[in-house]
Amino acid sequence: MKSRKLLMIPGPIEFTPEVMRAMGMPTASHVAPNFIEAFGQALERLREVFLCPGGQPFVVAGSGSLAMDMAAANLVEPGDKALVVNTGYFGDRFAAILERYGAEVTEVQAAAIGDEPELAEVEEALKADQFKVMTITHVDTSTAVGADVQALAALGRQYGALVVVDGVCSVAGEEMRQEEWGIDLALTASQKAIGVPPGLALVVAGPRAMETFRRREAPVLNYYADWTQWLPIMEAYEARRPSYYGTPPVNLIWALNVSLGQILEEGMEARFGRHRQLSDALKAGIEALGMGQVPVSPNKTATTLTAPYYPDGVDAAVLAKINEAGVILAGGLHPEIRARYFRIGHMGAVTPSDILTTIGAIEHGLAKVGYQFEFGAGLAAAQEVLG
Amino acid sequence: MKSRKLLMIPGPIEFTPEVMRAMGMPTASHVAPNFIEAFGQALERLREVFLCPGGQPFVVAGSGSLAMDMAAANLVEPGDKALVVNTGYFGDRFAAILERYGAEVTEVQAAAIGDEPELAEVEEALKADQFKVMTITHVDTSTAVGADVQALAALGRQYGALVVVDGVCSVAGEEMRQEEWGIDLALTASQKAIGVPPGLALVVAGPRAMETFRRREAPVLNYYADWTQWLPIMEAYEARRPSYYGTPPVNLIWALNVSLGQILEEGMEARFGRHRQLSDALKAGIEALGMGQVPVSPNKTATTLTAPYYPDGVDAAVLAKINEAGVILAGGLHPEIRARYFRIGHMGAVTPSDILTTIGAIEHGLAKVGYQFEFGAGLAAAQEVLG
Repeated sequence: MKSRKLLMIPGPIEFTPEVMRAMGMPTASHVAPNFIEAFGQALERLREVFLCPGGQPFVVAGSGSLAMDMAAANLVEPGDKALVVNTGYFGDRFAAILERYGAEVTEVQAAAIGDEPELAEVEEALKADQFKVMTITHVDTSTAVGADVQALAALGRQYGALVVVDGVCSVAGEEMRQEEWGIDLALTASQKAIGVPPGLALVVAGPRAMETFRRREAPVLNYYADWTQWLPIMEAYEARRPSYYGTPPVNLIWALNVSLGQILEEGMEARFGRHRQLSDALKAGIEALGMGQVPVSPNKTATTLTAPYYPDGVDAAVLAKINEAGVILAGGLHPEIRARYFRIGHMGAVTPSDILTTIGAIEHGLAKVGYQFEFGAGLAAAQEVLG
Repeated sequence: MKSRKLLMIPGPIEFTPEVMRAMGMPTASHVAPNFIEAFGQALERLREVFLCPGGQPFVVAGSGSLAMDMAAANLVEPGDKALVVNTGYFGDRFAAILERYGAEVTEVQAAAIGDEPELAEVEEALKADQFKVMTITHVDTSTAVGADVQALAALGRQYGALVVVDGVCSVAGEEMRQEEWGIDLALTASQKAIGVPPGLALVVAGPRAMETFRRREAPVLNYYADWTQWLPIMEAYEARRPSYYGTPPVNLIWALNVSLGQILEEGMEARFGRHRQLSDALKAGIEALGMGQVPVSPNKTATTLTAPYYPDGVDAAVLAKINEAGVILAGGLHPEIRARYFRIGHMGAVTPSDILTTIGAIEHGLAKVGYQFEFGAGLAAAQEVLG
């Protein structure tokens, strides 16, 4: 009897018991003292987790797509030019969202799936036109490509664009230093490395982004995403005053505050280091089992996510065998290669034991479908890195 | 030591233990069998709870305002005419949302706060112009006015308008028969009579609303609210197939399915009857204590909500005393009379005991602030109705 399985997908992830207890606490009024304090503290903590002391946080009920929507709807006016550094599925989505709000979108595409556009190409695009906004997907959840956000953000700033980072699969796992790197807006969703069940869109907007919003001439086209409504609410709760625009998702915000507290207790540097080490260990195991990865080289890959190609003769059926061994992984998402690879999320409260459990289950699954390999080789390689 | 208080506000309400357990369950993947089944079942059950067997349900992470946003963004194209039957704060909000998406809005206002517009006035407005959409706030959470939705919807239909009902404080408590009454779209939020912590926007769109959406010429202006994305997801889960657009709020959807199951187990007729009886009992108690109510007459008041005026010499300070006695009530919301009244929510899992507890606490609070009345008179009057 082992019905409890380990969830190693790119979100939702495994959440801590303390977070799940907050989810199940009797819901309070949005003006209750224990809610006001938690919401206010969560907003303060978001600045620390995003490493953006001068930023304005927004916490709103919705999915990660709402966070993207908030960025685009509040920063873009019809006719503005936007540059999308496209590394996959979510770059396509950002382009579609920006266009919805009237932006003229230019995309810089990677040469191949699993790669990111060359910095020189991005610079060429930035030189060729004047962009109001430039978007970067930090970790493309469809490919596990981790973009060089630091270098890209510096380029965007140099050419006068507002730098927007989709950090849905990165914030609080992958190294991201919003203020130091000159990122004007970073966003994520609760169910990724932030470690809270799905249902919250999270945005931290820096001073230049807020200034751009304040100077808008056209109204924000999306009512629900409009900061005109949300900004006074965020300011009120941070000042420990209740305020009403829409009923906040009380339990999710309690859970958010608990998780942010745990993240800061670990410390951002230790957290980035742990994600790097666990990622290296898992990827070493994958390599030792003879599997390639979607990212074209080790320096193009995320530390929150791994996207192995199935080895020859193996297909998605192996995921069911891995599941039988107790670990839930995700199938491919990028339309062009969907059937050829799978995805492993390793972020948030993930431990060395989770990495070993995962590789153990993958070995078990591969053996079940008849793939020839040295049993235990993946585990040994991972263990070497874990030390 | 009595730290647990009874929450009697117009949402969030008291939720059942089974709902809270679903909130705290270890989060599953959005493709896990126990999530797919729950989501599919919740969609089916929404049709039953809205009494709209031919409707298309939408369940999306967001607040009630997102549900209003979905209605307006998907049904309205720039230049369309919309009629808002305005009974307070949320009528104003619907007008603002409709205008955001390019509608030319006409409002029919009530003669006074606490009243609803006369049917004849609404008919006059409908005769004077051709409206694509007419909106009705079933229960205005700011005033406890319950609109005559059945008669208004019939009028709207007669003059060719799509009838949209904001049922945020009504659905699953107040009597509403979406299909029978000719309501083309009804919406609510999870934390009201539906009985689930805040975080879900819920919409059921009838065939005429879906047809209007399908025949749109202009793109939906709001990306996140666009049914183009959500419709295939809802159809897939109802067919018990997983699908991906944004990560669904897994725990909230589990909780929704649990609550909808409990609602249907009670039965809609029994549920409407219980809400009427408990409302009558509470209102009898309020009257016996010498307090007037914001709704101008008993037939204009909601059964999910009561809005008493403070008696002479009493102000909002009494709410703190009522809180000390163990019951949390809400202050006024309507800007013009905010300081003169308070609000009591009584919906969802509310029981006769909750009504007595509430009146008992109100009596306690009134006595503490020096109001002269016959102690126990409110309880006796309520008990008379409860039988």
